[in-house]
Amino acid sequence: MRRIQVTETTENKDLVQEEKNVHAENEVEVGQETELTIEEQYEAKLAELQAKLDDEENRHLRLRADFDNIRRRSQLDREAAEKYRAQSLLSDLLPVIDNFERALQVEATSEETASIVKGIEMVYRSLIEATEKEGLQIIKAEGEQFDPNVHQAVMQEQDSEKETGVVLRELQKGYMLKDRVLRPTMVSVNE
Amino acid sequence: MRRIQVTETTENKDLVQEEKNVHAENEVEVGQETELTIEEQYEAKLAELQAKLDDEENRHLRLRADFDNIRRRSQLDREAAEKYRAQSLLSDLLPVIDNFERALQVEATSEETASIVKGIEMVYRSLIEATEKEGLQIIKAEGEQFDPNVHQAVMQEQDSEKETGVVLRELQKGYMLKDRVLRPTMVSVNE
Repeated sequence: MRRIQVTETTENKDLVQEEKNVHAENEVEVGQETELTIEEQYEAKLAELQAKLDDEENRHLRLRADFDNIRRRSQLDREAAEKYRAQSLLSDLLPVIDNFERALQVEATSEETASIVKGIEMVYRSLIEATEKEGLQIIKAEGEQFDPNVHQAVMQEQDSEKETGVVLRELQKGYMLKDRVLRPTMVSVNE
Repeated sequence: MRRIQVTETTENKDLVQEEKNVHAENEVEVGQETELTIEEQYEAKLAELQAKLDDEENRHLRLRADFDNIRRRSQLDREAAEKYRAQSLLSDLLPVIDNFERALQVEATSEETASIVKGIEMVYRSLIEATEKEGLQIIKAEGEQFDPNVHQAVMQEQDSEKETGVVLRELQKGYMLKDRVLRPTMVSVNE
């Protein structure tokens, strides 16, 4: 068996250490100077390479996990973006709808006016239909129990005939976009 | 030097083959039966492990490339979804806008009617502003050269004072959503 002289440098220390880990039972004597057999040297090299391979496999597993994560997250992002895609435009349409409703609250005294209002009401309804199709819904308020998640109390009133905490009046309509509150209803609540 | 007897199985063939690749200059004799030194056996094992490590590293590089690809693509998807997010609602609003404009083309003969129309016109303008904010734009038509990308010719007319192929009349407004045609303008074209 050939033996070679190994001077203990930092690198050799590592080599010896790994070698020891793999073949602890061999009880290699490690001192200032160590003699390693060819087999021991090869075993050390093999152990080193195997450790690299293990590292590489772990690195691959981690990257694979990251990969699956980013794919799943981007899928969820896509679904959320799709679900609430109209949110920005719908938010801008809320004051348009408010003004529309206000403008339609006129008393038509002449036939001409009545005819125009009728035409405009049809436009209003088609606007509401288009927004409903994208998921816009009016929040129920009057007569409901006050719910801070969807109602905003701007005043209190007293009605002894109704339960405490019930919404008495709707002061401004509130809207949901699907399961998301776009604008809470402004309400007055029974004391 | 110890020598061991190796019977040539398929596995050993591979081993020897790899060994040859790495140490071709050693000129190991491969026959029905081959004697390999301990060193040669170790070198073969090392070569095998190194090949596995190389494979693993390549596999990692490929996964890393896929990873970067999917990240880039999901970024582009997100940007496109964001850019055209309002497309569906805007498409549904086009007939609402058409009807709105039609309803506003009334002659107001009384002061009451004039006042209502004025109020409704303000609502109309705020609706248009909300859609413009999301990227809705009217396609230019009258007086423009006919462009099949944005115009749809539904009839031809003759006006000798104007150039051939020029849009004479706009029969229905067309709209772009940013750089995308949402609805081409219906036009009559000069013969």
